[in-house]
Amino acid sequence: MAAPSALDQLVDSLKRLPGIGVKSAQRIAMHLLQHDRVGAQVLARSLEGAVANVRHCARCHTFTEAEVCSTCLDPQRDRRQLCVVETPADQAAIERSGGFQGLYFVLMGRLSPLDGIGVRDIGLAQLFERATDGEVEEVIVATGFTAEGEATAQAIAQTLKARGINVTRLARGVPVGSELEYVDLGTIAHALVDRR
Amino acid sequence: MAAPSALDQLVDSLKRLPGIGVKSAQRIAMHLLQHDRVGAQVLARSLEGAVANVRHCARCHTFTEAEVCSTCLDPQRDRRQLCVVETPADQAAIERSGGFQGLYFVLMGRLSPLDGIGVRDIGLAQLFERATDGEVEEVIVATGFTAEGEATAQAIAQTLKARGINVTRLARGVPVGSELEYVDLGTIAHALVDRR
Ligand SMILES: [Zn+2]
Ligand SMILES: [Zn+2]
Repeated sequence: MAAPSALDQLVDSLKRLPGIGVKSAQRIAMHLLQHDRVGAQVLARSLEGAVANVRHCARCHTFTEAEVCSTCLDPQRDRRQLCVVETPADQAAIERSGGFQGLYFVLMGRLSPLDGIGVRDIGLAQLFERATDGEVEEVIVATGFTAEGEATAQAIAQTLKARGINVTRLARGVPVGSELEYVDLGTIAHALVDRR
Repeated sequence: MAAPSALDQLVDSLKRLPGIGVKSAQRIAMHLLQHDRVGAQVLARSLEGAVANVRHCARCHTFTEAEVCSTCLDPQRDRRQLCVVETPADQAAIERSGGFQGLYFVLMGRLSPLDGIGVRDIGLAQLFERATDGEVEEVIVATGFTAEGEATAQAIAQTLKARGINVTRLARGVPVGSELEYVDLGTIAHALVDRR
């Protein structure tokens, strides 16, 4: 069978997505062309739209379509507390817990020397600049309680403490080895209260 | 967190893909925007290209970019034998076996009443037309040996035999290279019935 090149290209592009192997890519391509061509076009437009419009918030580094995200612009938030999380999903989990009214800094990753992800890749320089704006009194480090999350937390704490900033860490109420995103709300709320 | 709408749209479009849940969709969207915006654009163009250019072969129904696919146009193939398969991947598997020199008809699916996939959806009418072109002498049904594949095979055999066409089915049996000890009982029972 001489496969059509447009189909091959589609399978190759899908294979490039994280967690999608060649079999999944073939199944998805087949499904789209056979049963959901509208879905394929919607996805194409969504990809173009996201690439064109989604950028990083100038203050907290999360994804936004504006210069500064709505959370950072919210006058109700307590500007003295800055919570550092790995991802927007982790930020959303803390918001759902209802236990935090301050602002955030989203690393968009974590230190992972084995994957070549260092201090530059997760915007630590921007965090240090953000944390020394004169308003922030406490930086609450809410990176995951995984090996990489802990290493990231230590790198942050070391540098910020050296600059005289008050750094706390979520309490170990969060189960060790788990991603914040999957932790129940009560545990997150307690961990915020018990931060050390 | 007020998530940006372009990001939400991307996650929604990804969620629509088979086998992709909301967590996977978020992870993929995050990865593309954070680490592989070029990959997102390549995928968008591949989707557009495939939707615009990939259609069904007028003779065998498989995906192709031409009116008739290269296999159907190949003058070396034996036009007296027509092998019916569920998918292009199944066709490719038979090609790799090197055991078949005839032509194919690709159903692009199989009967699945529970999923609402009936005779119309898998192009059986086109198969019947194709099989009665005056050149085809034998239709070899190579749908899967699953419940749905067997039901599809029976529907095909019934209709074609009623029109006087010679219909055969791939033999059920013990896979080459396997120890009998490890073969499931149903397969052994079928291999006994179909012994040659
Ligand atoms: Zn922000
Ligand atoms: Zn063809």
